[in-house]
Amino acid sequence: MSKKLRILVSNDDGIDSPGIFALVKSLKQIADVIVAAPDRQQSAVGHSLTISDPLRVTPFHREGVMFGYSINGTPSDCVKLAIAELVEIQPDLVVSGINHGQNTAINILYSGTVSAATEGMLSGIPSIALSLASHSYEADMTFAGKVAQKLVLQMSNIKLPEGTLLNVNIPAIEEKLVKGYKVVRHNSTVWRDAYEKRKDPFGREYFWFSGEYAVNSENQDNNLELDDVALENGYVTINPIHYDITNLKFINEIQFLEKI
Amino acid sequence: MSKKLRILVSNDDGIDSPGIFALVKSLKQIADVIVAAPDRQQSAVGHSLTISDPLRVTPFHREGVMFGYSINGTPSDCVKLAIAELVEIQPDLVVSGINHGQNTAINILYSGTVSAATEGMLSGIPSIALSLASHSYEADMTFAGKVAQKLVLQMSNIKLPEGTLLNVNIPAIEEKLVKGYKVVRHNSTVWRDAYEKRKDPFGREYFWFSGEYAVNSENQDNNLELDDVALENGYVTINPIHYDITNLKFINEIQFLEKI
Repeated sequence: MSKKLRILVSNDDGIDSPGIFALVKSLKQIADVIVAAPDRQQSAVGHSLTISDPLRVTPFHREGVMFGYSINGTPSDCVKLAIAELVEIQPDLVVSGINHGQNTAINILYSGTVSAATEGMLSGIPSIALSLASHSYEADMTFAGKVAQKLVLQMSNIKLPEGTLLNVNIPAIEEKLVKGYKVVRHNSTVWRDAYEKRKDPFGREYFWFSGEYAVNSENQDNNLELDDVALENGYVTINPIHYDITNLKFINEIQFLEKI
Repeated sequence: MSKKLRILVSNDDGIDSPGIFALVKSLKQIADVIVAAPDRQQSAVGHSLTISDPLRVTPFHREGVMFGYSINGTPSDCVKLAIAELVEIQPDLVVSGINHGQNTAINILYSGTVSAATEGMLSGIPSIALSLASHSYEADMTFAGKVAQKLVLQMSNIKLPEGTLLNVNIPAIEEKLVKGYKVVRHNSTVWRDAYEKRKDPFGREYFWFSGEYAVNSENQDNNLELDDVALENGYVTINPIHYDITNLKFINEIQFLEKI
């Protein structure tokens, strides 16, 4: 390698989470790593931006390994602000994660991890989002760290089209049980919404989200081309995502609306 | 009409905003309307969900016209909770807006207005997001209200494919200057990120987002098929959006990653 790779790392679990620390430790072996991440847990914030409040930046370091900025914002804020104002040289890659919990199917839409990588992509920087299929903060991140390193080393062989990023999910199983890598598309799984109605200590009612993510059963016949199915079956999944969100096939069918 | 249409209305500017009130007043003329909206401004929250905090619901009414629920959550929370717990009968339509400010191109990703409609769509309910191209709270919403009514009356003639919703933008100009309706696709406009570095009264530094939305100049030659270009040119734009976010064309080019 002629020059050392520069990687900007972010996440949505917060700068103190084990996942981002594992990611930084692993990537440091092959690159210069700078971190810009939320100062606290920001899961399910989706693609939020902070526009009505000031953003504060605090220098951050951990165990002489991890360096960067802790920011009172969302994952999108962190990556935008880092690229626009905090880093002196544009990074070669943006890597977001390692998220505690999978980001497959509809979760991609709600994911702060993916939105951090999306901001990298929108700035024209190749970007990867990485998630481990376990919400436990004690989950072993060793294998996920290796996956991150391996994929980063492959990025020079990939010409990501404009507007596309890689969304990667890693099964939370022993490394020897992992079946391999699968290039996948997103499944159509959605949440079965439910809310628990509870009472607070003062007798006032509140609701708490208690939905269930149930892998789309129509597609459950081990169709390993689908992200959550392949993940459940022990594969590291790689989904190249973009935001081509106009339904072009349907456009002709509503042309009559131009005449209403 | 055999039975009266039932419409669930939400927004991201908050339940007190003029835009949602104009929308409700207009739709009440043709339908039963129930509101479930955030208790405060939630712009640019994207597709956020509240999962780590309780949601509180307060009955809301305004001027004997607008009835429903004020919720301390995001637009997505409001629609999910309303459909799962608050309304007795599943609504026939979800209408979100009228947003103060346009939701075109990349803004669709950040938009709480669109995310409220997206939740309706995910629940299998035909859904529309409506935005007016003016951030002013004094903006005249009369014409936008008429557009909402007109489109709702057309919904029985539209078979929205599964996973698709309508994202509608309305120019903030006098009604007589509006050129008509255009069915469009999203432009590739992104924000030119910038942050102002300021000092607070105690001398501490902070950053404030000051990015600029500049309509993609490559496409500015009055290509009226693009949402923000058509809007700028005085059209009401109708974009059928979906979340088909896997880049299927690119999948073959990264098959080699399965062997790393």
